[in-house]
Amino acid sequence: MALQRLHHHPLSPFCRKLRLVLAEKGIETVLVEEPWWERRLPFLRLNPAGKVPVLEIDGLVLSDSNAIAEYLEETRPEPPLIPGGPAERAEVRRLVAYFDDKFHHEVTVNLLHERVTKRLSRQGYPDSQRIKAGLAAIRYHLDYLEWLADQRRWLAGERFSLADIAAAAQLSCLDFIGDVDWDRVPNARIWYARIKSRPSFRPLLADSLPGFRPPAHYADLDF
Amino acid sequence: MALQRLHHHPLSPFCRKLRLVLAEKGIETVLVEEPWWERRLPFLRLNPAGKVPVLEIDGLVLSDSNAIAEYLEETRPEPPLIPGGPAERAEVRRLVAYFDDKFHHEVTVNLLHERVTKRLSRQGYPDSQRIKAGLAAIRYHLDYLEWLADQRRWLAGERFSLADIAAAAQLSCLDFIGDVDWDRVPNARIWYARIKSRPSFRPLLADSLPGFRPPAHYADLDF
Repeated sequence: MALQRLHHHPLSPFCRKLRLVLAEKGIETVLVEEPWWERRLPFLRLNPAGKVPVLEIDGLVLSDSNAIAEYLEETRPEPPLIPGGPAERAEVRRLVAYFDDKFHHEVTVNLLHERVTKRLSRQGYPDSQRIKAGLAAIRYHLDYLEWLADQRRWLAGERFSLADIAAAAQLSCLDFIGDVDWDRVPNARIWYARIKSRPSFRPLLADSLPGFRPPAHYADLDF
Repeated sequence: MALQRLHHHPLSPFCRKLRLVLAEKGIETVLVEEPWWERRLPFLRLNPAGKVPVLEIDGLVLSDSNAIAEYLEETRPEPPLIPGGPAERAEVRRLVAYFDDKFHHEVTVNLLHERVTKRLSRQGYPDSQRIKAGLAAIRYHLDYLEWLADQRRWLAGERFSLADIAAAAQLSCLDFIGDVDWDRVPNARIWYARIKSRPSFRPLLADSLPGFRPPAHYADLDF
């Protein structure tokens, strides 16, 4: 079988989501780091939208993290990451959209883009208004995460799913830059410690980025 | 069988997307108009995120337009709107994400929110910088639509799919406020005329909104 190639960037939450999916399903993948903001021509040929992640697999070039996750679920169904019947699967997908769309636009974009991407891509200084908006929004969203973690074994219900992966992917990027106040949300913290201890998560915690140093608890499994 | 209820707003592209899906699949649905910006308590009980669409069906309360579309595809597979094998389905989902996420955030939010939602929800005056950004972005995205419409029978390939529905849902809202320059994109225009002539599309064209009058060609099938 030809080896799969994932074009990614270490602090892209959508790439982290797919790295977790690939690892959970035991699909060996070569990681190719792509500085997507440079809009390099060879990369634009793979994905005209210019965004990571892009996965080369089965002779196809796939983009969009959800389209890829659904493709992997259809072609490599074990272990299931969108498990159960239609109702359970709808709840998984609702939460994936919540973290990929709402949480990402209200929190991750405001904090990660301003603090990291702008520096990497030399787009200027962080906008303090956006950082303020992101820090206000993350409190609200962490409260929702805390409620879910208190009510359920995993975020979408009894089973570990793509919802946990999507949430952990966003949060791990924010945790890298020290923007998650875990002390406020004890149940969410336990949930996140359980995710961090999964073998699929280890490679993410080993990522490094020149010029950025994550907080001490970032890679600590018993934080 | 109990009747389905869709909580919606006429100019929400995600509600339009689901109305098209429900009509294409022949699922009779009662429409309940929800002024979501008022954050009414009975509605927040249905969806704590406070967003339309929300679909009551099979004794469930579902939210997020994609989670709902996938649920309907699993429980009412005919006619298929995410047709084909895994590769074809990945292309449908990639384009759905393109229009729901990229196009929506770069174009629809800048134009529809500024011109319509702010007025409906009395949030103040349109921000001319955002309208300018939206008008610049729509040209770029229409070029991509024109390329797809030139290369393929339907946007994702040979078959009509959720990709066409997602794109038409965004564009129909922008067409309502006169922001689509169809003269520039002849193939996209033919594609849109074919969508508009489908029976599922008629109810959308009959929507009205107090204080807004769509351009003359809006409901014209041979525009």
